[in-house]
Amino acid sequence: MIRSLLTRTLLLLCLTNLAFPQAKPRARDLGVPFDGTPGANNAITDVRGVEVGHTTLISGSGKLKVGEGPVRTGVTAILPRGKDANDAVFGAWFTLNGNGEMTGTTWIEDSGFVDGPILITNTHSVGVVRDAVIAWKVKHGPPDPEGYWWSLSVVAETWDGYLNDINGFHVKPEDVFHALDTAHGGAVEEGNVGGGTGMICNEFKGGIGTASRVLDSKSGGYTVGVLVQCNYGDREQLRIAGAPVGREIPEHAVRKDDVGSIIIVVATDAPLIPTQLKRSARRASLGLGRNGSYSGDGSGDIFIAFSTANPGAAGPKAIHNLKMLPNDQLNPLFLATVQATEEAVINAMIAAETMTGINDRTVIALPHDKLRDVLRKYNRLTK
Amino acid sequence: MIRSLLTRTLLLLCLTNLAFPQAKPRARDLGVPFDGTPGANNAITDVRGVEVGHTTLISGSGKLKVGEGPVRTGVTAILPRGKDANDAVFGAWFTLNGNGEMTGTTWIEDSGFVDGPILITNTHSVGVVRDAVIAWKVKHGPPDPEGYWWSLSVVAETWDGYLNDINGFHVKPEDVFHALDTAHGGAVEEGNVGGGTGMICNEFKGGIGTASRVLDSKSGGYTVGVLVQCNYGDREQLRIAGAPVGREIPEHAVRKDDVGSIIIVVATDAPLIPTQLKRSARRASLGLGRNGSYSGDGSGDIFIAFSTANPGAAGPKAIHNLKMLPNDQLNPLFLATVQATEEAVINAMIAAETMTGINDRTVIALPHDKLRDVLRKYNRLTK
Amino acid sequence: MIRSLLTRTLLLLCLTNLAFPQAKPRARDLGVPFDGTPGANNAITDVRGVEVGHTTLISGSGKLKVGEGPVRTGVTAILPRGKDANDAVFGAWFTLNGNGEMTGTTWIEDSGFVDGPILITNTHSVGVVRDAVIAWKVKHGPPDPEGYWWSLSVVAETWDGYLNDINGFHVKPEDVFHALDTAHGGAVEEGNVGGGTGMICNEFKGGIGTASRVLDSKSGGYTVGVLVQCNYGDREQLRIAGAPVGREIPEHAVRKDDVGSIIIVVATDAPLIPTQLKRSARRASLGLGRNGSYSGDGSGDIFIAFSTANPGAAGPKAIHNLKMLPNDQLNPLFLATVQATEEAVINAMIAAETMTGINDRTVIALPHDKLRDVLRKYNRLTK
Amino acid sequence: MIRSLLTRTLLLLCLTNLAFPQAKPRARDLGVPFDGTPGANNAITDVRGVEVGHTTLISGSGKLKVGEGPVRTGVTAILPRGKDANDAVFGAWFTLNGNGEMTGTTWIEDSGFVDGPILITNTHSVGVVRDAVIAWKVKHGPPDPEGYWWSLSVVAETWDGYLNDINGFHVKPEDVFHALDTAHGGAVEEGNVGGGTGMICNEFKGGIGTASRVLDSKSGGYTVGVLVQCNYGDREQLRIAGAPVGREIPEHAVRKDDVGSIIIVVATDAPLIPTQLKRSARRASLGLGRNGSYSGDGSGDIFIAFSTANPGAAGPKAIHNLKMLPNDQLNPLFLATVQATEEAVINAMIAAETMTGINDRTVIALPHDKLRDVLRKYNRLTK
Repeated sequence: MIRSLLTRTLLLLCLTNLAFPQAKPRARDLGVPFDGTPGANNAITDVRGVEVGHTTLISGSGKLKVGEGPVRTGVTAILPRGKDANDAVFGAWFTLNGNGEMTGTTWIEDSGFVDGPILITNTHSVGVVRDAVIAWKVKHGPPDPEGYWWSLSVVAETWDGYLNDINGFHVKPEDVFHALDTAHGGAVEEGNVGGGTGMICNEFKGGIGTASRVLDSKSGGYTVGVLVQCNYGDREQLRIAGAPVGREIPEHAVRKDDVGSIIIVVATDAPLIPTQLKRSARRASLGLGRNGSYSGDGSGDIFIAFSTANPGAAGPKAIHNLKMLPNDQLNPLFLATVQATEEAVINAMIAAETMTGINDRTVIALPHDKLRDVLRKYNRLTK
Repeated sequence: MIRSLLTRTLLLLCLTNLAFPQAKPRARDLGVPFDGTPGANNAITDVRGVEVGHTTLISGSGKLKVGEGPVRTGVTAILPRGKDANDAVFGAWFTLNGNGEMTGTTWIEDSGFVDGPILITNTHSVGVVRDAVIAWKVKHGPPDPEGYWWSLSVVAETWDGYLNDINGFHVKPEDVFHALDTAHGGAVEEGNVGGGTGMICNEFKGGIGTASRVLDSKSGGYTVGVLVQCNYGDREQLRIAGAPVGREIPEHAVRKDDVGSIIIVVATDAPLIPTQLKRSARRASLGLGRNGSYSGDGSGDIFIAFSTANPGAAGPKAIHNLKMLPNDQLNPLFLATVQATEEAVINAMIAAETMTGINDRTVIALPHDKLRDVLRKYNRLTK
Repeated sequence: MIRSLLTRTLLLLCLTNLAFPQAKPRARDLGVPFDGTPGANNAITDVRGVEVGHTTLISGSGKLKVGEGPVRTGVTAILPRGKDANDAVFGAWFTLNGNGEMTGTTWIEDSGFVDGPILITNTHSVGVVRDAVIAWKVKHGPPDPEGYWWSLSVVAETWDGYLNDINGFHVKPEDVFHALDTAHGGAVEEGNVGGGTGMICNEFKGGIGTASRVLDSKSGGYTVGVLVQCNYGDREQLRIAGAPVGREIPEHAVRKDDVGSIIIVVATDAPLIPTQLKRSARRASLGLGRNGSYSGDGSGDIFIAFSTANPGAAGPKAIHNLKMLPNDQLNPLFLATVQATEEAVINAMIAAETMTGINDRTVIALPHDKLRDVLRKYNRLTK
Repeated sequence: MIRSLLTRTLLLLCLTNLAFPQAKPRARDLGVPFDGTPGANNAITDVRGVEVGHTTLISGSGKLKVGEGPVRTGVTAILPRGKDANDAVFGAWFTLNGNGEMTGTTWIEDSGFVDGPILITNTHSVGVVRDAVIAWKVKHGPPDPEGYWWSLSVVAETWDGYLNDINGFHVKPEDVFHALDTAHGGAVEEGNVGGGTGMICNEFKGGIGTASRVLDSKSGGYTVGVLVQCNYGDREQLRIAGAPVGREIPEHAVRKDDVGSIIIVVATDAPLIPTQLKRSARRASLGLGRNGSYSGDGSGDIFIAFSTANPGAAGPKAIHNLKMLPNDQLNPLFLATVQATEEAVINAMIAAETMTGINDRTVIALPHDKLRDVLRKYNRLTK
């Protein structure tokens, strides 16, 4: 009996591990205060249908040999309607600072649609990922010998050359296929995973982070989910829940300027049209503002927002019937976007672990205990 | 001897009063912590040449009679090179949320110049102010019988209809002339003055605020000045120096939604070209982010930035010789813009005084003592 | 009996005159070839619900005395749903060259709506017209003591200072009310009327012009209407139906550079959302391209497009149900926009009559006979 | 004597052949009238320093086997300062219709610089070309083990899947290197070469075309060069020199809709800053307008403009000294851009030859004789 219970407990732990493989504390677990109500997983996947997949490439150590490593990079895929759907979503994008790349945006701007997955990788692998997405779509789509319909992939990047052999071009088409094929709903792995593997955030180890908000029923009960690939920021400026955390933990800062970048993906199931989604994307700026960013010259702070409402709106039809939320009801969504962005960035730093990369360079993780000390000092610790 | 000392002291106080006519504490005086080094007046006028003038219209009380009052409004004029210059400045603009008006922006966008003063008033007086600026230019400019060169005024607004008889159209051309003709350098009046007279900010009394930063000599020693007409924000979201001030002082909140607006003017003497000024203008968003804004649907959050460097660049010449700061040296200017915006908003609320307007509606000033209590609670009080 | 018939005929002629008061030939009547099928009036009013009103101000002659005249100016009002409706339309705008003003565009960009009439006047009267529209809305709207809902008027301009005492500020609020109150459907007066009274186009007399296209039923049967206030262009570059008309009629050219402007209003009943309307507005450029424009530095070439479909989409409701035309069915609308723009500009020049203004300056009308001669020379005359 | 003359004539012909290796008539040679004065080669390379290289991939015939061919594609490289320079140029971009890709634009928009070559290829090869440009820069640049400075390549595309095995991904990194390494000044190959190999324009065979204009000395003597990869357009709408050529030559039209695209590169040696270059890029629209385009929904009409003036402006320095042409002197450059765009498109069609691609599909070249017949019919033939 006891043995049986033990077995079941172990099994449960194991399954939990599979479902929540990070099994790591998140920002809220450490007592960081955030406003608003998160969804079940406090993740972009709380927006029904959204799936996320990662390919994480870590190998080698020691001195950089271009083409051989060390490798600290990867690919993250966000599929607005999941990998089995073939249906675009309304979308829009915004640039807070443009020192970066997001392909496909010219057509997003004019069409109002994001057609297909959104990929995030390192700066020098945008090309291979872009073409690989097309190849994947050709393989998975309906017959189309001319490739007419699959064309303009959305691929964004941040720069991981401080830890990764970025000129070794280690991301391959199969890595893209893997991220797409293993995408799933539920909990999202954070920190040193996928495109975020080698990233640095506020001079701590950065990477992938996510968060969500669910509006109350009076506001429509909609969900907003945010995922970031976080590679920006000056330690000195970092605020967490308003407390000057960066200044209080000055140790082991790795860069002097705000040379990184951040890609922010905002998802919602609220029925927003592209004009409205553009405004949502712009709100991500205010979440960064709360965390102290000044969006440096070297930063590629590029945001994309989409809505999973209005399925079929990009399909073949004489006239589409759409739902649209009135503009004067957008405020709760805007606030949720700011809040989820604020939290997703902190989640990325909390989840990321200290990493050593090329030439034995090390970037430390944000130390959880010291963070709690600082929050306590500023009367902001919740538990 | 003593008498002489006393006299001199009184004289000094008197002169100080002239120089700093508000004689009121500003945010720093109350112990609010801000980063960076402000200029002599901690004002937009620290950028040499910039002049500011206000016309404040306050009259009547009690029940609203449209056209008769009560009146709580005005006009603020910012002259990039002072009122005696006839020389455009490089400029650019940005919209964080577009529920507002700034005339003249279409030509700013294409020409890269702000040609003439920038005026701020209430929503329903933009027109009269716009044409009055042209009339003022016609009067003050070189002979030009056809009016060819004076055309596209820059006039922005926020909405003061909660306290002011906005449909009474009380701003007149003479009020515009007065604001322009009395513009001056030095200290800038803040709070319930000029265009800011009847404004509300984070559900406290708002209005005009300003602040500046001077870069260290390593960063070029440039000055950045910011002036805001502050009428935006949700009490609940207000953060000051990271502390949740709004939530801690919930009393007498006047509006439920973020229906207001904020106009932000960014000035610098750094030699920036229009592309760079657009990026500076965009940074004002991050200052608002620090203070907790989510930029509601009803908000006209419109920013304009200009550089007083490169005099004569808009003049008649075969080729202009320009100075340009390299992009990779913009970070200190970006950070200064964020910091000065953050502080200017708080300065506006600190300077504004409780006001009663139409229908005996009252908007309270941010109570200084309670603010200090909250900052102390969150270990953020500096004095 | 005969008398009765005669009476009826005269009555009919009279009514026809009322309905088509210009009774003047239009471009097609002169044998200028255009593609596509126009609507009943070949006017923007062919889009059901659209109304147009003009106030034409012509007085005085001889030497300019600023403030006294001569006056050659006016106001044109376009009401997307007619003057009795209080319901915004989806809209968007585009700038080909920004040396001009269109107020209200910042909120059009973010809201996706054009809320209220579109006014066009001279450069120095934009302000008075803007505030007068608010006053008119206050008067005609539902009770709203605070003026909260009436705020951001859309007013555009071109510069008529070559013929008009532009610094005399002759447009008054009553002129705006008159243009709005007399707006009507049906035929639209063209040429030297309304805001177009004193305008110059390709160095011929310009002004107001309009045209429309009706799509075939296979393309949905939608209507596209265009109205221009035409004040742009170099004689040398003018092409009509592809023929080098400007070069062939070099006489009496009045200006050397492309210093004018053109405001273009595009209306449709096709169910387009704002993203799609922005693309429609941009197509007006291509109509100008056909006519030879290179959009000079001094030109304010600003275009606005709206859709009368989706009534109520700006109203108070939990969720709006919209219709949307798929992107892949936009081509006929784009082509119609190009064609109607091309024709509206020529209609403006055909309707405009030679005018003498300040300081006895004269701008000649495009001579109809010579135009026909040129078209014949290039084998383009249709009748 | 006669022999000597003959020899010299032959020698001259031979040299001419070297200088104009295509040895094919261009639009002017066929009597198509264009305005303005072209440079020595009537090509983008007339702007000193600009180099162009092509890799043309043609192999196989018959039925499409994805991955095997037939192949009808390639890469074209435009190097603003030639392949040996490592110095960015001021630049800007514009989208007339966004159904296409140009990578690197987000940073062009914010930095004001185009850093490196501009590549044009087919839609599905943008990725491989983008990463290959980085690899090429890594190889050719100064030592930079981290790849920090080489990052955001500019790669554009149009779709050649009607003739080419586009999903076969036949463009390889070596093809990119070849186009870059063989880039040269002087005459530019046009028609079925480089990225233009498999393109279709106005339902005739399209491809690469170029033209230039030299301003008179009064206007500064500057040069404007344009290069297009031309794949857009409806036969029905095609105008050449204003004549309705498309309608007069309806034979063998291959597509029903305006589903293609056009990439336009505008180069100048005039000292323009990015704000001004954005306006230049926008003028390319008007050149397309002259040729009858309505910029269909499926078209990626994306334009980029750069200035070779101000060398070193992107380099490391405390302050840059720049030259800037005043805005009021831009008109001749704008007009030159419109004219060179108009001509470059026609040059592309004149140079392109009939091609048979996948599944034995054939696209005919614009027949030179019939073109001359049509121009003669409309009295537009110059020789």
